[in-house]
Amino acid sequence: MRTSNYLLSTLKENPVDAAVVSHRLMLRAGLIRQIASGIYAILPTGFRVLQKVEQIVREELNKKGAIELNMPVVQPADLWRESGRYEKYGPELCRLKDRKDNEFVLGPTHEEVITAIARKEIKSARQLPINLYQIQTKFRDEIRPRFGMMRGREFVMKDAYSFHMDKASLKKTYDDMYDAYSRIFTRLGLEFRAVEADTGAIGGNHSHEFQVLADAGEDTIVFSDKSNYAANIEMAKAPAPDYERAQPNGKAIEKIATPNCVSVDEAAAALNLDSNQVLKSLLVKATDGSLVMICLQGNYELNEVKASKIEGISSPLEFASLDEIKEYTQATAGSLGPVGFKGRIIIDQSADKMANFACGANETGYHLINVNWDVDVKNYEVYDLRNVVEGDKSPYDDGILHLRKGIEVGQVFMLGTKYSQAMGCCVQDENGKLVPMEMGCYGIGVTRVIAAAIEQHHDDKGIVWPEPMAPFKVAIVAIGMNKSSEVKEVANKLYNELLERNIEVLFDDRDERPGVMFADMELIGIPHTIVVGQKSLDQGMLEYKHRRTQSKELVAKDNIIDFVISKFEN
Amino acid sequence: MRTSNYLLSTLKENPVDAAVVSHRLMLRAGLIRQIASGIYAILPTGFRVLQKVEQIVREELNKKGAIELNMPVVQPADLWRESGRYEKYGPELCRLKDRKDNEFVLGPTHEEVITAIARKEIKSARQLPINLYQIQTKFRDEIRPRFGMMRGREFVMKDAYSFHMDKASLKKTYDDMYDAYSRIFTRLGLEFRAVEADTGAIGGNHSHEFQVLADAGEDTIVFSDKSNYAANIEMAKAPAPDYERAQPNGKAIEKIATPNCVSVDEAAAALNLDSNQVLKSLLVKATDGSLVMICLQGNYELNEVKASKIEGISSPLEFASLDEIKEYTQATAGSLGPVGFKGRIIIDQSADKMANFACGANETGYHLINVNWDVDVKNYEVYDLRNVVEGDKSPYDDGILHLRKGIEVGQVFMLGTKYSQAMGCCVQDENGKLVPMEMGCYGIGVTRVIAAAIEQHHDDKGIVWPEPMAPFKVAIVAIGMNKSSEVKEVANKLYNELLERNIEVLFDDRDERPGVMFADMELIGIPHTIVVGQKSLDQGMLEYKHRRTQSKELVAKDNIIDFVISKFEN
Repeated sequence: MRTSNYLLSTLKENPVDAAVVSHRLMLRAGLIRQIASGIYAILPTGFRVLQKVEQIVREELNKKGAIELNMPVVQPADLWRESGRYEKYGPELCRLKDRKDNEFVLGPTHEEVITAIARKEIKSARQLPINLYQIQTKFRDEIRPRFGMMRGREFVMKDAYSFHMDKASLKKTYDDMYDAYSRIFTRLGLEFRAVEADTGAIGGNHSHEFQVLADAGEDTIVFSDKSNYAANIEMAKAPAPDYERAQPNGKAIEKIATPNCVSVDEAAAALNLDSNQVLKSLLVKATDGSLVMICLQGNYELNEVKASKIEGISSPLEFASLDEIKEYTQATAGSLGPVGFKGRIIIDQSADKMANFACGANETGYHLINVNWDVDVKNYEVYDLRNVVEGDKSPYDDGILHLRKGIEVGQVFMLGTKYSQAMGCCVQDENGKLVPMEMGCYGIGVTRVIAAAIEQHHDDKGIVWPEPMAPFKVAIVAIGMNKSSEVKEVANKLYNELLERNIEVLFDDRDERPGVMFADMELIGIPHTIVVGQKSLDQGMLEYKHRRTQSKELVAKDNIIDFVISKFEN
Repeated sequence: MRTSNYLLSTLKENPVDAAVVSHRLMLRAGLIRQIASGIYAILPTGFRVLQKVEQIVREELNKKGAIELNMPVVQPADLWRESGRYEKYGPELCRLKDRKDNEFVLGPTHEEVITAIARKEIKSARQLPINLYQIQTKFRDEIRPRFGMMRGREFVMKDAYSFHMDKASLKKTYDDMYDAYSRIFTRLGLEFRAVEADTGAIGGNHSHEFQVLADAGEDTIVFSDKSNYAANIEMAKAPAPDYERAQPNGKAIEKIATPNCVSVDEAAAALNLDSNQVLKSLLVKATDGSLVMICLQGNYELNEVKASKIEGISSPLEFASLDEIKEYTQATAGSLGPVGFKGRIIIDQSADKMANFACGANETGYHLINVNWDVDVKNYEVYDLRNVVEGDKSPYDDGILHLRKGIEVGQVFMLGTKYSQAMGCCVQDENGKLVPMEMGCYGIGVTRVIAAAIEQHHDDKGIVWPEPMAPFKVAIVAIGMNKSSEVKEVANKLYNELLERNIEVLFDDRDERPGVMFADMELIGIPHTIVVGQKSLDQGMLEYKHRRTQSKELVAKDNIIDFVISKFEN
């Protein structure tokens, strides 16, 4: 490709509205352009990267016997009613009507459609197991689209769905897909971890996420330093406290004015206590409409996924609104506490070990001190409810837990029979009885992979693609082409030879200032650059530049192609 | 691929709701399944064909320097307001709102989005010309989705858009794309014609359609037998009559009862006349809201596109409703005529040559006879308004016009500045003046190509793919695999050897009855079949079957792969 015939679309300036590196660089390097909030056009350079990722995904899935098909973007609402998700999915599900007022949704995922296909097409257990996938455009109406392709509304996803007679067969395909995903992200050159994960809106009972490690990640992942244990923080079990609760000090409860204290830290400061001596009390909704109080040791954060899994609690977890709190307790959110609270009380296992602690008085602007469980609060339930923190002991080995930020690029789920049961996707078992198929589903955020790769692979000059993802393998920068016929001739010859050898090459023939051309090639992140300039040509040489290491060497002109090929990493 | 691990999904019975061959065969061969009216899932076999078509399209476009990108399905309504099409496009444009009540459309085509990209990214005439394309899912809310993939609502389209400084450059790219399209459809093995076409809702001033010839086609195309002239019937000029109007016969106009006559043929029969002696009168809407009468010689059909191009007439042409006709004329549709009609009258050039003719009396159940232009009707305008018919003289040469049915699979347009002007997509010309870019656009209905190919290439056993489109190149049918270990071993070895040689092979290892397996492979239309059976193995032979010719031969076992390869057509 010659830049003169190409849509390079690089930007010199940093776009103001891009908060993370990958978003900035995808805009600056001409990979994407925003068309509406969270909706992007993928420009030619971005499209080349997308094709590379798709190809690797395809190859690895095909090796595992997965079969590609294509399902529609526009899906009948009735299928979503069958699964029960039409109501449950919430406003991320974009609903629309056709000209005849029939209801449809834009597919955010395709469990319903594939299950509708499978229940018709799979007539016999002999057709199982089967694993079907597509690489397709999805739409999720995110409330806050952000970070460019990382959390867009329209995006490309690879979604696979497998069907099985039994859990053992599901487990085998799940493991196959786990393995395929590991190979895909390894081949793409990404540093990633597979972590235990929550199943969220998709459902099911077992799941792993594939997380690319990067500071801009929205997920927190937890590792042990003494084993392979790794989990999304949503799923990471906190260690049970290894100490006993202290005895009550015998002092009477006292109500202290803590005006304008909203946070635990503010209350602790006003009371001259450490935050771990102050109870954090929150109100959440129960499934019966009542409000439930959740208490944690003040220095810990609530893990919403853990809370939402407790019987009777809203799932996904819903917090009480400020109005509801006021109505229920006559206090503001910063002054809540379990003493005298009439509803259900759920406390974290670390809060359970607190004694003589402070908590809100359920009266705005006041806290109680010298509070004790069983003395001042009689009825409460104890659970693991907090997020783990850096330095926690691992509950699975004798290691220490560490936290890193991750970008979720893939997830594998054992769905079980959630969809097959609801939608009547059954086959006869060996006794002739109709049983719902076991299902798995497996997603990769193909466009998000690109953003994650950039978060992990960039420097101050731009993107430093892992070679398998690079839009072009080689750049030719010709300096002073319009002044030197030799430069022009050598550059053109080199370009044609690279094309003949099926090497993807971008020939910067714009005859811009050298600085502009080098900056663009580095911004786009092409791994190998050949500089054709009169000065080195006078010595029969060409200059080679390696993007990642920034190393340069002079190479004999006639040897340049073999030399460049010897530098290829894939 | 082994059928035992594949989603074959063939159907023995003809689906009842499929009106055309391609729809029936796409369902029966397991290429597609309906998810909602006009919305289909593309099953694995269909997806393989789709990929083949896409690949050929890509290769030919890339050769012409077109650059691939990807634009979103969901587009902001505001872009469509800028071009003026938000109002004009009609209910085929699916409109929706996001959770924040912002208005969007599902892209039926991407002129607006690409023009919005080009006006930002193309800053200099040096970047022109440029030709950008995508292969992408489109949605058009057809009022009557029908014929499966032929007229669906969601479909895959290749759409390209080119930008130019001037018309000469546009003409060059238009010709390039015309050439690329000719190469694509030729490579796909389709019999097609490029015909002059109307520009319809896309707009512009010059267009060709690529029509695959097939009886199920919804378009009628017109050829001369003495030149290269070919056009969509919408665009085909009718020959001017080469005879003079006869003199009035002097008989007085007479009103005759023609009860219950609705059509021209019924009226002609009642009046004992030929239908070419009866005037056909229709009422259509004018742009000012009034009704205009259009008259044709009774044996001809109105060409709506020709009528809609007349100044002051609705475009697209809108007929008066039955209520409007009654209100305007006090007569029903079958009894209309120009005598005494108070509005504008437009007549076809053949109607202009009629004398002493019959027409409706503008009184329900009555016709007039002995009517003459200029005597009984004074004010009328003469145009070419009729569809040409088989046997018409060619207006361009001394040949005869013939009609064939065609399926439109591609169209190329010179758009001119319609979108660039409306949306401010400009560059500076050599005098430093901002001028709107000249644009072209170029579409291929990728999924429709598949249906069209089947319409043209099938027999009573199923699909007979042109080889470049076939989902698999070779089928292996193993007979009695569970009875004969030799059959099993030879079939498996053959399968692995074909895979090693990168030949796409479907190994029917279901061990079904031979008749079932042969029927499926023929239905799917795999060009070459190798039959592995004990009887021929006993002679050291395998049977080869050619799908299209239905010829069979015995081939020495060890020679079979070279033999099969020698039969490949691409």
